[in-house]
Amino acid sequence: MNDNISPIHSPYNAPNTISLVAGNGDTNNPLNAFDMALLDAGICNVNLIKISSIMPPKAEVVPLPNIPMGSLVPTAYGCKTSDIKGETVSAAVSVAIPKDKELCGLIMEYSAIGGKKETEDTVREMAKTGFEMRGWEIDKIISLASECTVENIGCAFAAVALWYK
Amino acid sequence: MNDNISPIHSPYNAPNTISLVAGNGDTNNPLNAFDMALLDAGICNVNLIKISSIMPPKAEVVPLPNIPMGSLVPTAYGCKTSDIKGETVSAAVSVAIPKDKELCGLIMEYSAIGGKKETEDTVREMAKTGFEMRGWEIDKIISLASECTVENIGCAFAAVALWYK
Amino acid sequence: MNDNISPIHSPYNAPNTISLVAGNGDTNNPLNAFDMALLDAGICNVNLIKISSIMPPKAEVVPLPNIPMGSLVPTAYGCKTSDIKGETVSAAVSVAIPKDKELCGLIMEYSAIGGKKETEDTVREMAKTGFEMRGWEIDKIISLASECTVENIGCAFAAVALWYK
Repeated sequence: MNDNISPIHSPYNAPNTISLVAGNGDTNNPLNAFDMALLDAGICNVNLIKISSIMPPKAEVVPLPNIPMGSLVPTAYGCKTSDIKGETVSAAVSVAIPKDKELCGLIMEYSAIGGKKETEDTVREMAKTGFEMRGWEIDKIISLASECTVENIGCAFAAVALWYK
Repeated sequence: MNDNISPIHSPYNAPNTISLVAGNGDTNNPLNAFDMALLDAGICNVNLIKISSIMPPKAEVVPLPNIPMGSLVPTAYGCKTSDIKGETVSAAVSVAIPKDKELCGLIMEYSAIGGKKETEDTVREMAKTGFEMRGWEIDKIISLASECTVENIGCAFAAVALWYK
Repeated sequence: MNDNISPIHSPYNAPNTISLVAGNGDTNNPLNAFDMALLDAGICNVNLIKISSIMPPKAEVVPLPNIPMGSLVPTAYGCKTSDIKGETVSAAVSVAIPKDKELCGLIMEYSAIGGKKETEDTVREMAKTGFEMRGWEIDKIISLASECTVENIGCAFAAVALWYK
């Protein structure tokens, strides 16, 4: 590399796959609980970069690809951590996919105290609202959620990871 | 792509444009209010990646370019969300541009309860302070702010987006 | 650049160096204190992009390279800010490096009220725990910490920056 370059940017296409994952962790501190939730979700050995939160047009929904360790992975995610024994926390993500395939999809994430059913309902409603704001028609909404009941320090995590095929 | 590659990095030049945008949203939950504020600011269908917060040397200040949907856009931003009906919240960004064009500029973001005039004054002062710390001379400071008075859940948003020409 | 490209991604290798840095700042507002801590740490004129938090396999531990101003630098970091005069705050990072050089390392960050000795001990323990979860053997753990005793608004910062050689 020469001296006047910056490594995060280049003129390549936007990611063309999205993958929904979710998981939980419970251990003795918040960051390890988060890491354990990523492990449970199958996405623990890469570098998540938090994004807000668009599915590129025509991206394909796929199971999480085999991403090389240490890769920088643009990811929209929600997580909820609690240290209250017996409390249930949950996290969910949704993606509203447009009828018009020239448009992008909208990713929403939400996390809360409480079970995953209500959290997932909420995050689906949020995606619907986002499309209504844009005046766009929805083809379908997909979603995924997780929940955990805290023993030590618990973390519920749900994410949409963007990648390439 | 082969297997041992990471997609966020490559040896291309740093972004060479910056664009200041601002907007507000008010709806029934915080993330939709944030999304609506992005919509209002004209930057809602891309993926913001939060950065801290430098204008690359010689970057040009331009109106927000036509960025393809789903793109990953490095952005410094402030936002303030409130659910207190009648409360005014504001967000502002500033950029201190150096006299010496070999140096970088400094982006500052700030958000607060209260009107945008005071928030914008504060964020301009912050940019000035940052240049004083570096012992650099300022050519000029540019800034932009937004405010909203909350009806349901309100969000004021201001950003500097980095991109390319 | 043509119109349908996104600038953050490209098929280049993951970063192959990591650098540990730490510093402190104390001034009249939180963001300037953070900026001053970055200045103290030697990493103030680039754009940090927060990552969670993996050392790519075989990455080399090096002193912070000469990174061009404005570059987008993937960084795992912890920081703790306080406005309570006389309070000590600290931040620390650790990296667990695997015996098996095909595996990635694990970066942990932690910040707290209190001195850096205890914060650094904690963050080293966190890295150890993360490797135990994975069932991996540790070659060694490296770490760095900073602390500051607040005069106005103080910020302790510690980071692992990923870059290239």
